[in-house]
Amino acid sequence: MTTENRQWILARRPAGEIKDGDLVFGAGPIPNPAKGEVVVRTEWLSLDPTNRLWMSDIPQYMPPVALGAPMRGLICGTVVKSASDSVAEGAVVMGPGTWSDYARAPAAMVSPVPVIKGVPRKDVFGQLYLVGPTAYFGLIDIGAPKIGETLVVSGAAGAVGSIAGQLGKALGCKTVGIAGGKEKCAALTRDYRFDHAIDYKSETIEQRLREVCPEGVDIYFDNVGGETLNTILAEMNLFGRIVQCGMISVYDSEGAGAAPSNYPLILMQRLKVQGFIVLDYAARYPEAFRALTKLRLEGKMNWRFHDIVGLENAGNAVRMLFKGQNTGKLIVKVAEPA
Amino acid sequence: MTTENRQWILARRPAGEIKDGDLVFGAGPIPNPAKGEVVVRTEWLSLDPTNRLWMSDIPQYMPPVALGAPMRGLICGTVVKSASDSVAEGAVVMGPGTWSDYARAPAAMVSPVPVIKGVPRKDVFGQLYLVGPTAYFGLIDIGAPKIGETLVVSGAAGAVGSIAGQLGKALGCKTVGIAGGKEKCAALTRDYRFDHAIDYKSETIEQRLREVCPEGVDIYFDNVGGETLNTILAEMNLFGRIVQCGMISVYDSEGAGAAPSNYPLILMQRLKVQGFIVLDYAARYPEAFRALTKLRLEGKMNWRFHDIVGLENAGNAVRMLFKGQNTGKLIVKVAEPA
Repeated sequence: MTTENRQWILARRPAGEIKDGDLVFGAGPIPNPAKGEVVVRTEWLSLDPTNRLWMSDIPQYMPPVALGAPMRGLICGTVVKSASDSVAEGAVVMGPGTWSDYARAPAAMVSPVPVIKGVPRKDVFGQLYLVGPTAYFGLIDIGAPKIGETLVVSGAAGAVGSIAGQLGKALGCKTVGIAGGKEKCAALTRDYRFDHAIDYKSETIEQRLREVCPEGVDIYFDNVGGETLNTILAEMNLFGRIVQCGMISVYDSEGAGAAPSNYPLILMQRLKVQGFIVLDYAARYPEAFRALTKLRLEGKMNWRFHDIVGLENAGNAVRMLFKGQNTGKLIVKVAEPA
Repeated sequence: MTTENRQWILARRPAGEIKDGDLVFGAGPIPNPAKGEVVVRTEWLSLDPTNRLWMSDIPQYMPPVALGAPMRGLICGTVVKSASDSVAEGAVVMGPGTWSDYARAPAAMVSPVPVIKGVPRKDVFGQLYLVGPTAYFGLIDIGAPKIGETLVVSGAAGAVGSIAGQLGKALGCKTVGIAGGKEKCAALTRDYRFDHAIDYKSETIEQRLREVCPEGVDIYFDNVGGETLNTILAEMNLFGRIVQCGMISVYDSEGAGAAPSNYPLILMQRLKVQGFIVLDYAARYPEAFRALTKLRLEGKMNWRFHDIVGLENAGNAVRMLFKGQNTGKLIVKVAEPA
């Protein structure tokens, strides 16, 4: 075990896009856990759109990362030091940690990685831990899909969107995915079972939506917010549901374009719009694991990783999320799994 | 029975505020019912914010009134001619009709005025028929109030708002009403049992809200939309509910100010925003009648009429709704009840 602990520090809150110098890569000694804490040797670091939110100080669902502190991120790894009775050294755990080789975390915040037959640990952490339940509870609880309804997903080639689309398909919906670029749109219909793909980079969403779903939209699973949301608001059917899962276009834009002028259609079309974060459903994760695992083992649930190797590359890699450059769940291999 | 039928015709769709000439008052012969229709001698005409919407051709929940056609409105009166087996001449009915002395209506659209002990027919039509259930189902089904929660109502001195506030109070909420002017705000706390009143004409909503509910807002019953909605979005607690009942500031403004820049807080605070119209709940009206009647007879449900006498005054009177000039449910006495 080396004594060096490399880590990314939030040096400055990004203004708009993340730029060089916002996150700074440095090294220090391996930390010791305070009482009730553990130190985890990070093997996998998950990079997620919400990371950008944590870098800002706009109102959000958790306290933002403090300036000068290690950047927060979801990690999976092995407990190497424990000052808690509830988590033993050697346990393989996952939870919110930091972008560090060795991350301190409250023992109460990490959980053992469940062993699921047929699903590798990397997939359990990267796809089933938070990504899958985000898609699952957003679609099932808020979207409440019915057989034959039309589901539109934005960010459809992304980690959450691709699972949401496949869940909708498994439940009998017609599914339409929106993504940027030929490659991603090909993946939507080929790998993620979408009935139609819309390429926002080369097509007009409004026009294509009217072509592929003249019947209107019953459920919109929104990962992007902004202009796309506003466009789809105008296509929603009576009693439609908008699953407000993410607003990636807003996190990075200093709020521009966040105000949908079609908001009054929420009243006119009697829509339900609901925001959520997956942590609200923690008590029900096993329900999501069961559903996703079943579909996975039946060959009805594809997912993909976009692998980054080396913690030193995390600071650049996270920016891919906001440029639509990742193809699959973005994950950093920090160390060989124990 | 006279042979003259005076009526208001929609001559032009209003641009912004309703102006002279948008509605034209004229007279013609008393109509005859087509098959399946009735002709109702109008005794009461209800004037409601939604009338403004029907005059426009923006997307809405019913077809707009056609240009050159009699203006649509809710009426109560006596059937004087029937070409339907289901409704007899002499029946006292209410339903969507027109701003006419004698209104044609499909028999299927009118219903007998229920006889409710202790509640006069005018109140059954003006308060219990659609106004009361609008407040009831919006608050109960979408707002889902819990004891000790904080409920904010805009348009709180209006017909729906004043009932919504009293329902919230009866269910154990702290209630805060927003209205315009000293007179109305006095009525909020004196007559409608609000714990606090905010006068948007002389006070800053944001500042006063923070004073009277530093604990934040759990339920916002929105009748106005626009800037008020945007302000209150910023005060909503986690898991708050916004009952999107009306957007009177938008109907009359050609859409200006309709886009709430705080929309992303729906995600961050995990809010639910839901639009509805009372017609969605028609099958459950008896539930609302029962609740409202019980509170009324216990002295816990006050309501007020703003009476207008004479159909000829309807065209001016309806404008009061958009200037906040009415004090109570706006209703026109068209003829002496039979």
